[in-house]
Amino acid sequence: MGGVVAFVSSGPGDPELLTLKAVSRLQTADVVLYDDLSSGGILAHAREGANLICVGKRARLPSAKQDHVSRLLVDYAITGARVVRLKSGDAGIFGRLEEEIATLRAAGVPYEIVPGVTSACAAAAAAGLPLTRRYTARRVQFVTGSDVSGGVPADLNWVALADPQATTAVFMGKQNFHLFSAHLMEHGLPPTTPAILAQSVGHGSQKLLRSTVGKLAQELSREAPSSTAVILYGPLV
Amino acid sequence: MGGVVAFVSSGPGDPELLTLKAVSRLQTADVVLYDDLSSGGILAHAREGANLICVGKRARLPSAKQDHVSRLLVDYAITGARVVRLKSGDAGIFGRLEEEIATLRAAGVPYEIVPGVTSACAAAAAAGLPLTRRYTARRVQFVTGSDVSGGVPADLNWVALADPQATTAVFMGKQNFHLFSAHLMEHGLPPTTPAILAQSVGHGSQKLLRSTVGKLAQELSREAPSSTAVILYGPLV
Repeated sequence: MGGVVAFVSSGPGDPELLTLKAVSRLQTADVVLYDDLSSGGILAHAREGANLICVGKRARLPSAKQDHVSRLLVDYAITGARVVRLKSGDAGIFGRLEEEIATLRAAGVPYEIVPGVTSACAAAAAAGLPLTRRYTARRVQFVTGSDVSGGVPADLNWVALADPQATTAVFMGKQNFHLFSAHLMEHGLPPTTPAILAQSVGHGSQKLLRSTVGKLAQELSREAPSSTAVILYGPLV
Repeated sequence: MGGVVAFVSSGPGDPELLTLKAVSRLQTADVVLYDDLSSGGILAHAREGANLICVGKRARLPSAKQDHVSRLLVDYAITGARVVRLKSGDAGIFGRLEEEIATLRAAGVPYEIVPGVTSACAAAAAAGLPLTRRYTARRVQFVTGSDVSGGVPADLNWVALADPQATTAVFMGKQNFHLFSAHLMEHGLPPTTPAILAQSVGHGSQKLLRSTVGKLAQELSREAPSSTAVILYGPLV
């Protein structure tokens, strides 16, 4: 009777990095809500006649947008539809899933989460590198480099982030990396720490720039803010 | 002429969590080296006649085993074979990839890494939870709870790991969690911090136990060491 919502991780963008489970949920969905207008190869798995709704890009206020998406999920699900909410990377990592889940729970709509390939893993793989290493990179951590207002998030744990024995992936961090990295260096991370800027991982336009934290900070301060990118730093060599 | 090695992430165990790219590499492989005897549903994607070689479980000395696997990769690749080295979870996370990659580089064998679903993401998804949350879980970190000798790894960054504003996934941490969590609490993590023990994620025998860091520490000190498990802790509610 009632519908169900599947939060489906779509991976970093390469349709080949969808899981079989993600493909299966797309194939049986009545409605697919997606954020990214460039996800054509992924949406191609949806069945003919499925309702494909782009909920990204157009809305301006983050909170209004989030409320609107959550309402749509409930509205479709209570008509009995099988709803897929497509989320880039792994849905559980910086996907703001908690807000949509809270609305579904309040409305009594069942949901599942289909995990996927996070862009940090895809970026490291594209560079031919593991994220962890025995002895030298015992810990791996993911963090956002921008908050909703576009600034460096307040109250980040800089001691944890400046640890030279961890590999760190900064999501949405390109625009602010000159500020972000200043905090890292203040907390003792050597500017010579290897860093990789990975842009459009898994897309045809993929670019990898091997550098250091210090150099990247300088280079990115001169660049205009741009699309999604992941910055990796740590004992990457 | 020469062969190639693909490090293929097999995900947490559920064959449905393989990526399309992983399936494609398995389908075209001449040789598949795998660790886990329980990976039948995943190996089913290999073509008939492919050489399936289990390199896990039997070998006793970790270093000897690692050397042996690396040698096998090179030996098969230089015959021109398309070799798949299957790694559970995401190959780049606690997969000891660096040792096998170093051997391939030294031998001039080309390789690629196919990223996948790490068991931390799968565990959170199975629990219906995101790993990150705005404001309360701005950082997510993965760490191993055991080193090669079976003890808690020395020199872990306990300040980073005891941060109540991060979600932490402890891989291979069940056996030592009473010791591991003692360090966390010494460094200020409240014992009431929510924790989830996820066992055999994605397998038929999957078990999720919702608890707290303090309670889990007590419970696990009374349990025999067992199979693979991921422990999540942090602001999980």
